[in-house]
Amino acid sequence: MGDRTLDTTGERQGRDFVTDLTKKSVDLSRWYTEVIQKAELADYWQIHGFQVIRPYGYAIWELMQAGLDGRFKATGHKNVYFPLLMPESLLTKEAEHVEGFAPEVAWVTEAGGEKLAERLAIRPTSEAIFGTMYSKWVQSWRDLPLLLNQWCSVVRWEKATRFFLRTTEFLWQEGHTAHRAEDEARQETMRMLDTYRDFVERDLAVPVIPGRKSEAEKFAGADSTYTIEALMPDGQALQSATSHFLGQNFARAFDITFQDLDSQRKHVWTTSWGLSARTLGAVIMVHGDDSGLIFPPRVAPHQVVIVPIPARASRPTDEEAVRGAVEAARQALTGAGLRVEVDWSDKTPGWKFSEWELRGVPLRVEIGPRDVQKAQAVLVRRDTREKTFAPLAGLPAAAADVLEQVQAVLYDRAVAFRKARTSRAASLDELKVALQAAPGFVLAHWCGSAECEARIKAETGATIRCIPFEEPETADGVAAQPGPGSCVVDGKPSAQRALLARAY
Amino acid sequence: MGDRTLDTTGERQGRDFVTDLTKKSVDLSRWYTEVIQKAELADYWQIHGFQVIRPYGYAIWELMQAGLDGRFKATGHKNVYFPLLMPESLLTKEAEHVEGFAPEVAWVTEAGGEKLAERLAIRPTSEAIFGTMYSKWVQSWRDLPLLLNQWCSVVRWEKATRFFLRTTEFLWQEGHTAHRAEDEARQETMRMLDTYRDFVERDLAVPVIPGRKSEAEKFAGADSTYTIEALMPDGQALQSATSHFLGQNFARAFDITFQDLDSQRKHVWTTSWGLSARTLGAVIMVHGDDSGLIFPPRVAPHQVVIVPIPARASRPTDEEAVRGAVEAARQALTGAGLRVEVDWSDKTPGWKFSEWELRGVPLRVEIGPRDVQKAQAVLVRRDTREKTFAPLAGLPAAAADVLEQVQAVLYDRAVAFRKARTSRAASLDELKVALQAAPGFVLAHWCGSAECEARIKAETGATIRCIPFEEPETADGVAAQPGPGSCVVDGKPSAQRALLARAY
Repeated sequence: MGDRTLDTTGERQGRDFVTDLTKKSVDLSRWYTEVIQKAELADYWQIHGFQVIRPYGYAIWELMQAGLDGRFKATGHKNVYFPLLMPESLLTKEAEHVEGFAPEVAWVTEAGGEKLAERLAIRPTSEAIFGTMYSKWVQSWRDLPLLLNQWCSVVRWEKATRFFLRTTEFLWQEGHTAHRAEDEARQETMRMLDTYRDFVERDLAVPVIPGRKSEAEKFAGADSTYTIEALMPDGQALQSATSHFLGQNFARAFDITFQDLDSQRKHVWTTSWGLSARTLGAVIMVHGDDSGLIFPPRVAPHQVVIVPIPARASRPTDEEAVRGAVEAARQALTGAGLRVEVDWSDKTPGWKFSEWELRGVPLRVEIGPRDVQKAQAVLVRRDTREKTFAPLAGLPAAAADVLEQVQAVLYDRAVAFRKARTSRAASLDELKVALQAAPGFVLAHWCGSAECEARIKAETGATIRCIPFEEPETADGVAAQPGPGSCVVDGKPSAQRALLARAY
Repeated sequence: MGDRTLDTTGERQGRDFVTDLTKKSVDLSRWYTEVIQKAELADYWQIHGFQVIRPYGYAIWELMQAGLDGRFKATGHKNVYFPLLMPESLLTKEAEHVEGFAPEVAWVTEAGGEKLAERLAIRPTSEAIFGTMYSKWVQSWRDLPLLLNQWCSVVRWEKATRFFLRTTEFLWQEGHTAHRAEDEARQETMRMLDTYRDFVERDLAVPVIPGRKSEAEKFAGADSTYTIEALMPDGQALQSATSHFLGQNFARAFDITFQDLDSQRKHVWTTSWGLSARTLGAVIMVHGDDSGLIFPPRVAPHQVVIVPIPARASRPTDEEAVRGAVEAARQALTGAGLRVEVDWSDKTPGWKFSEWELRGVPLRVEIGPRDVQKAQAVLVRRDTREKTFAPLAGLPAAAADVLEQVQAVLYDRAVAFRKARTSRAASLDELKVALQAAPGFVLAHWCGSAECEARIKAETGATIRCIPFEEPETADGVAAQPGPGSCVVDGKPSAQRALLARAY
């Protein structure tokens, strides 16, 4: 398959490449799996549930890391690297924790040619590892707070898996902090939840609802778990990050104590919080369209792709002029701090347009012989496909402006969709109808009992995503603040509405 | 232990803190282990051979990553994340490879509550994993070259371990590339070796000798392995990075073929190359002194520490003036792009001096009431302890200047030490004497046979570190270029001298 074949059929193949893609509007699940492979974000691995993250997918993760890591460091957190493996005896120290995680653990039982005396767990999460070290490092109130974070992968043996959303090994960051006082630990828990909200909404353009998890849904070993919940296009919720107030549970299990100012020996208060590559799955699902991905400019590996429009073969001077203008544009855009790709491949423009649309580049710049003559470039934004012209001299400002608009539009679209798919239900029947008619978030009163929670789940398939701090906007436009009512299941008093949805 | 205790005894404790440290000049090995713990770079973990990398140690690793990653990306490489685990059947596909690594592998045999049908290896290195995916992705010459890299941890079950230098799990990067032609793959192998040399010499200020490994010392599965070798203060060599030309070994084992321009199906040519956190061990050993660490400014987490000198309690105006001057200095230095720490703790200046010296901060800036009066700051560089004064207004330029000097001096010192510890030997006896008298590098003719190599190792404890591209400077000042001679063991012809040393 040489150059010539591609040259003559490129345009058609380019269209096929996209035509082949299942329409997102028809089958979200298939579209999701296909677009990830076509755009070369990830691929399958030989072990069930594992994935390979390819350069384009990893580039987004690196930008997500940069956005979060800057926020962590600005709030005084420091990065570390703790071990991959822990002895079984450590994992079992905190009773609820082991109960929650042991069934999903991958165990190392042989190493260096020998059977090991004790099984070693590949970390499913590292509370037990950090707890062990904190118990050694923390002696005095002067050693507190400890504000540590690590970027790593963890392993949880899952049965039903899906690219990014649920994989057996996944990339994430896990923050682990220890504090002198309860209120300080509580503040940290909320501060990190708000850091996640800020990052996911501003950088990823995905609106989320923050709130507290029910007892049934909280992290194994936590006193309370807080979450940010996003809504996917099929009306299912996706938990996008969690922040746990661990109380003194791990401090007691791992004997993390300090001598306070009053000379008393006390247990510390700890928190943990994490965001994983699963949130990249939310970005893909929320913003993409029938033609492929749409990446929010702040995390798009290429914010701008320049597609040179070829001159007629009979006009070599034109070709040189285009080449010069494209190179100048690339330099100007890069100089303005934008991430720019130029597609000099020998594919046809049509093929390139389709390919970069599928790959979700938020802005395409076309420069051809006629554009050079007019000292202009064609700008085509990915979200609306709107075409504008900008003078070559003013290209960086025009591009930056369009990118800001794309970022805002993606967020606004997602907010509008969520609003259209958020309702209130005053009874279990109303809840069922709401989840059937236009699946999404439903706000409903719940008394707080595990029985009613289980019945809701059994009858509707929906779970309590969180007890939200504020009620999100609903489709009917009726605003409401959290307030008391009656449980939709047993009619008992409810302090406020819970947020319900089926979930990934 | 409240404030008061510390205030009155801080000066003495500060001195103890350093006095406690074993002198590097007396016992390098103990000094090394102690200084890593005292400076809080790393700590032991509960599983033999594993370590915990603490914030200060991880901060250096992050700077090392940034330095290398920028170089990788500038040469067209892209980052990815490939799986932690591989089925045993993959590891065994390349015969030499499995022979080299299988004895060190940690095996997952149970997961998700079940015995696994096939053991899964935690990656000891990822040639087999990349090879498997490359075989799927590479179809045409258009898919080449593939230039991928990943930052991750790998596990090799080691018996004798030591912080950073040899740990069971270690952080590293591993590059894996596939090429259309042999010469291109060979060029890549050498280009990455030179990238390592440039990074280690310029950023880490550690001089290295590049060369080719002997057959006995090469990577399991490689056609040839190239290395950069550094010399530690005890005269032992430390392999600081390796770059492997894998020929078509992995291409054949993993069936990585492509259709070339001539329509023929051909095997690709592959390379792999890695640098690990062990190289941080070299930085620690090479530059430190009896008072502790000395970090090269380019990778020092704090390049400058400002120690405010307290005013007399009776002069609150002075205290305010110092606070203002320190804050202004911090802002000016940070604004100039320097990494700055201010030590506002309630320890005494003496304690702080000792502590930051132990932690290896290359430049200390002292600002006290008298300095403020004179609008100056005291600059004390860590390497020579030389004290100079700089006007507060010119502090950033003066600090940057000192840091450049420190970077250069550390490198020059290491080069001078290496030169003093490099010699030539014309016989096995001379080799023994050289290694005994002043352990270091010895250049000696070697015929290339495995028998002679084994005999050298058995009789002297030294191994062939590499066949160097150029002969390094020797203590006697006699320059020589690689040229023929007679093997020091069997007298047979030798094309050039090999570089020998005992090694970590």
